[in-house]
Amino acid sequence: MRFCSRLLLSAALASIVSWTAAASEVPAQAMLGFHTEAAARQRALEQRFDTQLNAADLRQWLQRMSAEPNHVGAAHNLQNARWVRDRFQQWGWRARIETFDVLYPTLKEHSLALIAPRKFVASLQEPAVAGDATSQRTDTLQPYAIYGGDGDVTAPLVYVNYGMPDDYRELARRGVDVKGKIVIARYGGGWRGLKPKLAYEHGAIGCLIYSDPRDDGYGEGDVYPEGAWRPQSGVQRGSVLDTSLYPGDPLTPGVGATKHARRLDVADARSVLKIPVMPISYADAQPLLEALAGPVAPTAWRGGLPLTYHLGPGPAQVHLKIVSQWRLQTLHNVIATIPGRDSPDQWVIRGNHRDAWTYGAWDPLSGHVAMMAEAKAIGTLLKQGWRPRRTLVFASWDGEEPSLLGSTEWAEANADELRRKAILYLNSDANTRGFLNAAGSHSLQALVSDVAREVIDPQTKASVYERLRASMRVEGQRPGASEESKRIARQAKLGADLPIYALGGGSDFAAFLQHLGIASLNVEYGGEGEHDGIYHSNYDTFEHYVRFGDPDFSYGIAEAQTVGRIVLRVAEAEIVPVSFVGFADAVRGYLQELQALVKDKRETALALNELLEDGSFVLAADPLRRVLPPEREAEVPEIDFAALDAVVTRLKASAERYDAAHLAHVSSGSTLPDARRRQLNALLQGMEQALTMPGGLPGRDWYKHAIYASGALSGYGVKTLPAIREPGEAGRWDEAQRQLKSTTGVLSEYCDRLDRATTLLNQQR
Amino acid sequence: MRFCSRLLLSAALASIVSWTAAASEVPAQAMLGFHTEAAARQRALEQRFDTQLNAADLRQWLQRMSAEPNHVGAAHNLQNARWVRDRFQQWGWRARIETFDVLYPTLKEHSLALIAPRKFVASLQEPAVAGDATSQRTDTLQPYAIYGGDGDVTAPLVYVNYGMPDDYRELARRGVDVKGKIVIARYGGGWRGLKPKLAYEHGAIGCLIYSDPRDDGYGEGDVYPEGAWRPQSGVQRGSVLDTSLYPGDPLTPGVGATKHARRLDVADARSVLKIPVMPISYADAQPLLEALAGPVAPTAWRGGLPLTYHLGPGPAQVHLKIVSQWRLQTLHNVIATIPGRDSPDQWVIRGNHRDAWTYGAWDPLSGHVAMMAEAKAIGTLLKQGWRPRRTLVFASWDGEEPSLLGSTEWAEANADELRRKAILYLNSDANTRGFLNAAGSHSLQALVSDVAREVIDPQTKASVYERLRASMRVEGQRPGASEESKRIARQAKLGADLPIYALGGGSDFAAFLQHLGIASLNVEYGGEGEHDGIYHSNYDTFEHYVRFGDPDFSYGIAEAQTVGRIVLRVAEAEIVPVSFVGFADAVRGYLQELQALVKDKRETALALNELLEDGSFVLAADPLRRVLPPEREAEVPEIDFAALDAVVTRLKASAERYDAAHLAHVSSGSTLPDARRRQLNALLQGMEQALTMPGGLPGRDWYKHAIYASGALSGYGVKTLPAIREPGEAGRWDEAQRQLKSTTGVLSEYCDRLDRATTLLNQQR
Repeated sequence: MRFCSRLLLSAALASIVSWTAAASEVPAQAMLGFHTEAAARQRALEQRFDTQLNAADLRQWLQRMSAEPNHVGAAHNLQNARWVRDRFQQWGWRARIETFDVLYPTLKEHSLALIAPRKFVASLQEPAVAGDATSQRTDTLQPYAIYGGDGDVTAPLVYVNYGMPDDYRELARRGVDVKGKIVIARYGGGWRGLKPKLAYEHGAIGCLIYSDPRDDGYGEGDVYPEGAWRPQSGVQRGSVLDTSLYPGDPLTPGVGATKHARRLDVADARSVLKIPVMPISYADAQPLLEALAGPVAPTAWRGGLPLTYHLGPGPAQVHLKIVSQWRLQTLHNVIATIPGRDSPDQWVIRGNHRDAWTYGAWDPLSGHVAMMAEAKAIGTLLKQGWRPRRTLVFASWDGEEPSLLGSTEWAEANADELRRKAILYLNSDANTRGFLNAAGSHSLQALVSDVAREVIDPQTKASVYERLRASMRVEGQRPGASEESKRIARQAKLGADLPIYALGGGSDFAAFLQHLGIASLNVEYGGEGEHDGIYHSNYDTFEHYVRFGDPDFSYGIAEAQTVGRIVLRVAEAEIVPVSFVGFADAVRGYLQELQALVKDKRETALALNELLEDGSFVLAADPLRRVLPPEREAEVPEIDFAALDAVVTRLKASAERYDAAHLAHVSSGSTLPDARRRQLNALLQGMEQALTMPGGLPGRDWYKHAIYASGALSGYGVKTLPAIREPGEAGRWDEAQRQLKSTTGVLSEYCDRLDRATTLLNQQR
Repeated sequence: MRFCSRLLLSAALASIVSWTAAASEVPAQAMLGFHTEAAARQRALEQRFDTQLNAADLRQWLQRMSAEPNHVGAAHNLQNARWVRDRFQQWGWRARIETFDVLYPTLKEHSLALIAPRKFVASLQEPAVAGDATSQRTDTLQPYAIYGGDGDVTAPLVYVNYGMPDDYRELARRGVDVKGKIVIARYGGGWRGLKPKLAYEHGAIGCLIYSDPRDDGYGEGDVYPEGAWRPQSGVQRGSVLDTSLYPGDPLTPGVGATKHARRLDVADARSVLKIPVMPISYADAQPLLEALAGPVAPTAWRGGLPLTYHLGPGPAQVHLKIVSQWRLQTLHNVIATIPGRDSPDQWVIRGNHRDAWTYGAWDPLSGHVAMMAEAKAIGTLLKQGWRPRRTLVFASWDGEEPSLLGSTEWAEANADELRRKAILYLNSDANTRGFLNAAGSHSLQALVSDVAREVIDPQTKASVYERLRASMRVEGQRPGASEESKRIARQAKLGADLPIYALGGGSDFAAFLQHLGIASLNVEYGGEGEHDGIYHSNYDTFEHYVRFGDPDFSYGIAEAQTVGRIVLRVAEAEIVPVSFVGFADAVRGYLQELQALVKDKRETALALNELLEDGSFVLAADPLRRVLPPEREAEVPEIDFAALDAVVTRLKASAERYDAAHLAHVSSGSTLPDARRRQLNALLQGMEQALTMPGGLPGRDWYKHAIYASGALSGYGVKTLPAIREPGEAGRWDEAQRQLKSTTGVLSEYCDRLDRATTLLNQQR
């Protein structure tokens, strides 16, 4: 998997503040968590760290690790695990392989054919391409949708666009029903796994998902091997597990899939889908789409194939067969640690997955080799006599692609210890040329900007902070820029901390952040390397990466410099280097969005229902191309935001007091008395956990975080204040009002804790 | 040609008011220009008129008239002229054919070939399609771009998207220069003739224009004959005369092309283009576009062909040859009149062109047969003893397609008489199933809504007013609706007069409205019939029209009912049925747009220049896909709108006084004394002419109207307050400020005249 920026267009951004802005006197070199002298020592350490990073290492490791298939259970994936463990050990880390046994279905038999109005048998193959030796191998997993159902179905076909909830509403307005049909959806618009889930809920008996060339093929650029983009036979594999319920092993929700764990029967695993699902290429999709009749698809639904997109159903009749081998498979996480010299029970965790759908040069190994470079450099520091104040835990996860298996099972198996000890989980996945892309807990926003100011962009020689800032400002100035882009540009102009995105789903941070409430970051470079075209296909090769990704691995080095700095600062800081004004502003922004959502839904429902009542939709419709009026929308009651509004105001005040106290402390040059320092850091270690709701989100209690969740109906895309927002978006206003109270309670306790931290800090003066 | 709604998306709408809203007591059946009793008589007359309209007539006339090619000079076009004249005479009209001699080049020789990197010879043919007997004929004009230059050129190809000014800016940022190249542009984004003009101004030596299937082919719907849309070999012919200077005969600008008129040499005719231009199909375009390399085209530039769109230049090398026969050709307008019984020197003019690019079933004959139905029904009223108060003039124009030749030369030849006599020019062109689409002078806005309330929509049996209102409201409620749509929807909700669009260019109203300042309307039905797919191609046939246009000709009848009512009301009204509050509100809206434009350009220039100065564009650009920063923009000075603002405020007050006086008069039941009535109507007859600027618009003095013009850089698309807006858009702020003064003067004199009219009306009481 990976962190797909395209799917995060709706991601929420925090407003921009600088933690240093909380006080009037800003020391030139203020560093979160370090007083001036310690900051100078820390910078010297980071410079020594940098000198140990070597692009040739990354290239060599990537070439070696991506030479053969790396899916869960593949021989080479296990070889890589052992080799990675050995490297960590060689570099001075304690390293071991930890295993879990998870449900892991693979294909036994599969086929797809058009049987009417003409015959066509889909190839389902991804042929080798010239100039890419890796793609010649024949031992990768064939394209499939893991955790789809088995089935042997024949039915008329219906084109459902992206297969998202709005798409089904449009189909209904055109009199098209998918009950008993096989649907074909294009990739995009929402997470892959939602497409078959929603199709099933609407009565479909099978689901095809294809890559449309407009979104993902020649419409984007020249196709591989001429260019980087998806060739006509390229297929995007992937998981369709219902991760909106819970990610990780379907048989062991909430607990580690250890050897003797209690397991559900497959039939009882709610996250496994019920209908067969197959991802296909646009070469295989074209004959199916050409054979559809029925209404012409709405304008926005039309893709890049040279045909008129119709909805069906039929006359295209499709036969889809999938038989899987349902069995347990062993995962191999590599866990490497360096015990802290002072606070061994405070952990800084850094992870990247190692398993891939095919070879994984891009996804995930480009990020994995950066993590290894960090580990090797830290090893050198160790050899030079350095020891971190806190414990470092580096993880090479297995089984991320099927459904974040390795990280989730490890986090669940070690939940109690993690809740007590983890300060930060720091993730990456595919990494490439471009801009710093950081997302996660907003208490870390200032730390990210601080670090970004000190890392040099390889192409421009400006800081990666300056480059990102320029990009935000140029983006906001573009004609037709969104209101959000304009807002970000205005904020970036101020030159304070740059906003980070909230985290949804899609990589190994999920269990840490959303299940356990551990402050998390996902940090990668990207936006200029051309990843999308080979995403989860047979062409995710070393050959492709060094042409179209990060040819000289300079962004691998930038990634190691950035993430390494964050690791070293959190590991070394006297006081955990978090700050809270950025978080308070982010929450204020999310609350404003919620209030706008309520207002917008209220006005929309009123306007819509008036038009429905006075018959305007019927009058305005073309009688020869009947589109029925939309459904009536429930009226939106008054929602009482007062208590939540008040606690968000209090949060800002508490945050300002804490950040000011922190700044005053680090500027004072003195250190805290030991006991008070430990007391303060213990408070800060659990601060993000104070944002969890014990009962979890409505209907999906695995998800505990009150501020961030991957959307139940958007997949990777984040939903902020999810306990309120999701019922609201679905029109369940009573539930939203109830959850508003719970969220208010959570934030109130968070403020209490923050105020206690401030008191501890201020006592010293 | 025709009035292309797609090209008018940016058209300006007036705000909505009801003329009756100007007074507090609104009589139930108030009719502009008629007191209550006269209104009842008028409604009875209109009902008698309706009973004479017969769909079978329209069908039979259309089939006959579109059976053979109808281009200028075609035998069948002349036969149609004589037949139309004879029909008018048979129906009791005075009718005659009036001729002009105009420059009318036709193809002698033409060819297009790709000569590198591989060979391909374009077919340039539009083959017959199954089931369409008319398309089998071989005597239509081959596709060409009339008034393009001759040439025999070979050069590398460059793809320029729509070939509009912004597109050249984007090319420059990507280092692509068209100097010495042949450009290929797709249709859309602006008027056809601007594409080769701008290409020439940028140094290109040839221009191809093709119909991209995304905008105009299978991307829109099933192609002909399966569906209505453009098949792969369909070509859009058309004029590329530089009508931004002046339409009509290139050799006789400003005067009628009568036999002995003084003529320019072709070489001195500024409106004739200098480089060869060829319209081609997407079948012929695809091999050319496939052969382009260079940068990948920006996302918004990519069309619907199954390829990656590149900019070039080359390696595609193209050989383009065009040799024309440059000669004079005789046009045949049919002019039919019925002298007025009371005011023979006040003319109501109604026109539709008769010439076509091929058969013209849609364009223009679908509108022409509606006009004939009006004429026949009026003939019956004559036979029943009715005579119009004012003179009716009906015109069947020739030569509209090449460049509004027949109407322009007639208007220029009769300019003085028209200025003295014409009250209204009422145009139509292609007419089809759908919604009322009225555009033109806003003094006629209330009249249009009054009439629309009394015409029944054939499909829904609601009034066409109610149907249009429903459509405006639904459109504004759509998710993602533009701000303009939302505003229109809010206004339509009020239930007052519906807004009409301002008129740009594209059909025979141009000389009347924009050169002579005669109040004009273009009135058509459309939006549901599928016209675009065969526009200006060999498939504009009766067969296509009766499948995809208006199969039962019920919208032809609705058109005749609507336009006939407007003709009859203007012909019969005691007082010319114009009103002014709607116009005043429209002008206020245009002024607000101008003020927003100035503000927006000022802020954009400041923001852009700051980003240019601090290097953000360079930092944000991908060094491997270099896109240069945009050009610096001139700072926008303070523009003094005070005088214009004041006169627009005065205009509203004057308009309210006039409309109130008008309503009071028609409600009073009395009539004006004869002399005062004549004096008032004479004032109203010339009211719109008071909006002309004697010196014309900057740089193109043929265009005189101070409120409406077709855009110099948008073609059909209207520019309101053009003398100020166009220099402003181009950054020539001194000129804009000067023209602001002239426009203010024009509006001030208009208010004086309107106040005199009010005084005349009020004297009677």
